[in-house]
Amino acid sequence: MIKVAPSILSANFVDLKPDIEVAQSGGADLLHIDVMDGQFVPNLSFGPGMVEAIRPITSMPLDCHLMIENPERFVTQFCQAGADVVGVHVESTPHIYRALEMIKQHGVKAEVALNPGTPISMIHEVLPIVDQVLVMTVNPGFGGQKFISQMLPKIQQLNQLRQTGDNNFAIEVDGGISDQNVASVYKAGADIAVAGSYVFNNEDPVAQIKKLKTRTTE
Amino acid sequence: MIKVAPSILSANFVDLKPDIEVAQSGGADLLHIDVMDGQFVPNLSFGPGMVEAIRPITSMPLDCHLMIENPERFVTQFCQAGADVVGVHVESTPHIYRALEMIKQHGVKAEVALNPGTPISMIHEVLPIVDQVLVMTVNPGFGGQKFISQMLPKIQQLNQLRQTGDNNFAIEVDGGISDQNVASVYKAGADIAVAGSYVFNNEDPVAQIKKLKTRTTE
Amino acid sequence: MIKVAPSILSANFVDLKPDIEVAQSGGADLLHIDVMDGQFVPNLSFGPGMVEAIRPITSMPLDCHLMIENPERFVTQFCQAGADVVGVHVESTPHIYRALEMIKQHGVKAEVALNPGTPISMIHEVLPIVDQVLVMTVNPGFGGQKFISQMLPKIQQLNQLRQTGDNNFAIEVDGGISDQNVASVYKAGADIAVAGSYVFNNEDPVAQIKKLKTRTTE
Amino acid sequence: MIKVAPSILSANFVDLKPDIEVAQSGGADLLHIDVMDGQFVPNLSFGPGMVEAIRPITSMPLDCHLMIENPERFVTQFCQAGADVVGVHVESTPHIYRALEMIKQHGVKAEVALNPGTPISMIHEVLPIVDQVLVMTVNPGFGGQKFISQMLPKIQQLNQLRQTGDNNFAIEVDGGISDQNVASVYKAGADIAVAGSYVFNNEDPVAQIKKLKTRTTE
Amino acid sequence: MIKVAPSILSANFVDLKPDIEVAQSGGADLLHIDVMDGQFVPNLSFGPGMVEAIRPITSMPLDCHLMIENPERFVTQFCQAGADVVGVHVESTPHIYRALEMIKQHGVKAEVALNPGTPISMIHEVLPIVDQVLVMTVNPGFGGQKFISQMLPKIQQLNQLRQTGDNNFAIEVDGGISDQNVASVYKAGADIAVAGSYVFNNEDPVAQIKKLKTRTTE
Amino acid sequence: MIKVAPSILSANFVDLKPDIEVAQSGGADLLHIDVMDGQFVPNLSFGPGMVEAIRPITSMPLDCHLMIENPERFVTQFCQAGADVVGVHVESTPHIYRALEMIKQHGVKAEVALNPGTPISMIHEVLPIVDQVLVMTVNPGFGGQKFISQMLPKIQQLNQLRQTGDNNFAIEVDGGISDQNVASVYKAGADIAVAGSYVFNNEDPVAQIKKLKTRTTE
Repeated sequence: MIKVAPSILSANFVDLKPDIEVAQSGGADLLHIDVMDGQFVPNLSFGPGMVEAIRPITSMPLDCHLMIENPERFVTQFCQAGADVVGVHVESTPHIYRALEMIKQHGVKAEVALNPGTPISMIHEVLPIVDQVLVMTVNPGFGGQKFISQMLPKIQQLNQLRQTGDNNFAIEVDGGISDQNVASVYKAGADIAVAGSYVFNNEDPVAQIKKLKTRTTE
Repeated sequence: MIKVAPSILSANFVDLKPDIEVAQSGGADLLHIDVMDGQFVPNLSFGPGMVEAIRPITSMPLDCHLMIENPERFVTQFCQAGADVVGVHVESTPHIYRALEMIKQHGVKAEVALNPGTPISMIHEVLPIVDQVLVMTVNPGFGGQKFISQMLPKIQQLNQLRQTGDNNFAIEVDGGISDQNVASVYKAGADIAVAGSYVFNNEDPVAQIKKLKTRTTE
Repeated sequence: MIKVAPSILSANFVDLKPDIEVAQSGGADLLHIDVMDGQFVPNLSFGPGMVEAIRPITSMPLDCHLMIENPERFVTQFCQAGADVVGVHVESTPHIYRALEMIKQHGVKAEVALNPGTPISMIHEVLPIVDQVLVMTVNPGFGGQKFISQMLPKIQQLNQLRQTGDNNFAIEVDGGISDQNVASVYKAGADIAVAGSYVFNNEDPVAQIKKLKTRTTE
Repeated sequence: MIKVAPSILSANFVDLKPDIEVAQSGGADLLHIDVMDGQFVPNLSFGPGMVEAIRPITSMPLDCHLMIENPERFVTQFCQAGADVVGVHVESTPHIYRALEMIKQHGVKAEVALNPGTPISMIHEVLPIVDQVLVMTVNPGFGGQKFISQMLPKIQQLNQLRQTGDNNFAIEVDGGISDQNVASVYKAGADIAVAGSYVFNNEDPVAQIKKLKTRTTE
Repeated sequence: MIKVAPSILSANFVDLKPDIEVAQSGGADLLHIDVMDGQFVPNLSFGPGMVEAIRPITSMPLDCHLMIENPERFVTQFCQAGADVVGVHVESTPHIYRALEMIKQHGVKAEVALNPGTPISMIHEVLPIVDQVLVMTVNPGFGGQKFISQMLPKIQQLNQLRQTGDNNFAIEVDGGISDQNVASVYKAGADIAVAGSYVFNNEDPVAQIKKLKTRTTE
Repeated sequence: MIKVAPSILSANFVDLKPDIEVAQSGGADLLHIDVMDGQFVPNLSFGPGMVEAIRPITSMPLDCHLMIENPERFVTQFCQAGADVVGVHVESTPHIYRALEMIKQHGVKAEVALNPGTPISMIHEVLPIVDQVLVMTVNPGFGGQKFISQMLPKIQQLNQLRQTGDNNFAIEVDGGISDQNVASVYKAGADIAVAGSYVFNNEDPVAQIKKLKTRTTE
């Protein structure tokens, strides 16, 4: 059964608490927080202050996805704000190894993220040290985009890579996940599915989370 | 009596609605929204999505302060999200005239903002077209900093500039405003005072807003 | 009588030769070449290769207006390509004095350019060494924009500055110039008017150039 | 027989029309337009205005090679100006998938370009969605450079990649192509050869184009 | 009598100790350390490690001139390395007030520096908080350049500014200083003269320092 | 027996000459010069002036490791200053082939450097033209860091790559090298070991160099 990480990017920004509580009560496994700086991606969203505000009101692990230039500058703040996972894009820094080690030194799970156009070969050297790999299945920047099914072979390839060698990482997918495609990403090897508009742009978020999970047990 | 613009940067991010309602019921004149990109200032906060979420729940004018690089890229989104004022820093773009005209073309009030070290001479050419000037009285980036009293002469000088010539702009001050200094900025010429931690990091935000206003009528 | 500098940005890019010849025969005093890099301004146009190609086919002075980041990188190439004037924006480099001196060392006229929002105070230190000042009367980036009449006081102020002290520079205006406003900029002190769409987006460019000149002798 | 794409970078900028007509009449298959921003490459050349000007005067497909930073900013303009192919460098954006999809959404052929030092592994994820791959056989920035023969294995490797799997792309080569090496790139798998100075820096461009084609039929 | 600050940029990098000792024994008042990052200026020189190495071997105050982008990133390191003065360029950061306050918070003298083309009006707001103003009399980046005598009025104007109001700063000049011009800068108001090649590219540095001082007592 | 390249980053900056002489007399094979610009790495160190100063006082080859953005801008200066090897990071420029060719055109050995997170696949196209590959075994920026043993497979893989095909390059390792790990990097295929604090932060640098060499002959 896939783990589901609802993304607050699609929640109600002026009333986050109930959305977060509903997500947790509905069986969400992590809470996904999309951090965007308007430079690495063409949208602006949240910073470490949001993580600090969410930390006391939920026991869900906070899964922070940094879509920002040179994330080394902010990694420490996100860890100290209460993140359980911090994800950094391999395309966003020439010092990806250092960024990931900084996260781990805070006792936080280190995740490397890949844009749709970025090949797995780019993260070959960091696979042994990461806790999670995030495969973007849309072009990052906005909620509500369409799932890119051509990313399925990338998930499969990652799944194979962790079955040999010293690697030991979870696979997370982010972008356009719905009950139409969640079984396919799960079958390809994904452990965690981010879901934003699918969960929160619906009258019954709990049912939506359940649907995602059910589809991966059929 | 000075107008008060509480800044949501110091509000409770997971429960903004009641904070915003309290501010409005307490007599706040505008709602200040600090937009930070982690590049122009060393902090990340909100984007246009936050303005869109706040728009339907309050009738207060939304006063968006863009602390971002090349704000031309985002001005339209903030206007369309429901901003009533959009402020852009003269230090953040070589095309400050264009950025301000873009705002005005959306029927939104155009504001030019100045960091503490930036002289008034820098905005000489745009004063005739702006609706507001924002004088930073702390170095932008974080809430809770100490008011820089050396900025009072800058406010006075702006106040004089609008009494001669074709200028017709309001003066807003932002940074470290409290009942200790609000009278001095009001006397110097400020029309609007942003107040963040002073209002929201207090058990009685309404009383705090009142205190600011009272101090400028004594 | 004002000098007229037709801008090839509004000429026919696939058939420049006749447009340039018409301009010259029509009494144009300089040929204006708008260089844009897609970074300093949101448009891309020409590079030094265009200057090199135009040089042999006209005896008009070539007036190169660099709307590019860190123009020091390209100044030498434009001088060697045959420019008679090279203009650099004060907003485009922290080393404006150096950029202007580089131009002069090639025996080429050095011009400093100002965006509409940039005050004259910014060029105070370079006025004694420049041959020309370019006052933008639209926001740079595209042809065919509307003249900003609020720039007239800036031209007047520059005109006054050169009547006292060691300054000795020509004043050029660029943006939205037509027979409707050319008399006002000439009266304010402008010596040279750039005209793009007004000249070339017309069936009779020669008549248009004449009209501009005539209006400044009435 | 290889297709030939003469590059206007080596044509006569003040008299492009006849050069373009000669190219077409001489059997050129596409017209190559080198777009340079002085940032991604150390030269400045043309923008979308040039494409717009060329569009009505030729029926050759316009093959626009964007050597610019973050081409997402300009892709739409080039498509709307009349491009038939738009090429973007994988080194110029962290969002190569998004850039290529933007091109395709305009019904324009999407091409990914590689600098000489860039390995094919970098474009693994975008190969299934591109119409063309451009292999640079000189370091981009200037016309008239010497062909790097070490790029032949890269062309061969690409040729093999398209014979297996879902890929279906043309291979274009750009840089130093002449009758001395065109047979070798054709044999390696290239479908299209860009030729600039070889074609236009010669008294008989038609003969030059023919020579390139003939060499690939011998 | 002017104070002299020999610049180690012209000393022998592999044998700095004796050069520094000679400077001190010759009556030098400060030791000037030129820090260049190859971005703000087109040369690379030293970092905080050099200050740390020099600190224990001389009792001269260390006068660190940061010619680097966004100096806020490095100010703390230079202060902790043992700097007595840290100078930051107003052109190098939109947060000049913050950079200067950071220096002062370390108990180190804060200096604002101006390139030749930068007007005094740009530093109007920071004059009340600085300990020194550095007037560049060459374009920064290299030793051995020719003094720009047009900078004398700028020094005079600064000198007048400190005689009225709350200002209380020393004036330092840097670039091309020799016995030919030191009297003129001293007379204009300079308190400290940086001298690099004049001192160290000479067989008798002690005599050179003396000559500079003598010329300002005649 | 491994070659040892002591790094002057850990030497005494005010007394480099004796440290360099000791290194040479102790059997050092090259002298390693770490060039940092505070942009590509978060530290500032030396520029071409340091290479120029060291050149006349030693016969050791000077091994210059450029940790700077867009090294093409400085490659020529380092070659002309007397470098015997110039290393450029594949992560620091989209034009790595051009940067390496520029070095070779000066008759200087060209080296490509890889950060710990950068895979070997990234340098596939330049391996045939380089003289050396530098494998970082710490995250670049500072001396005194801990060796990352996960880099051993990368060295082994490079070693295999040069045993097949046209490649012919030396392998250099840099970061945390000591007598505890030098045998392992040598066994993996390294030809040259950079050693900074291990050599110079010790009372007997000569003994330290010897120890490194001895460990690779046991």
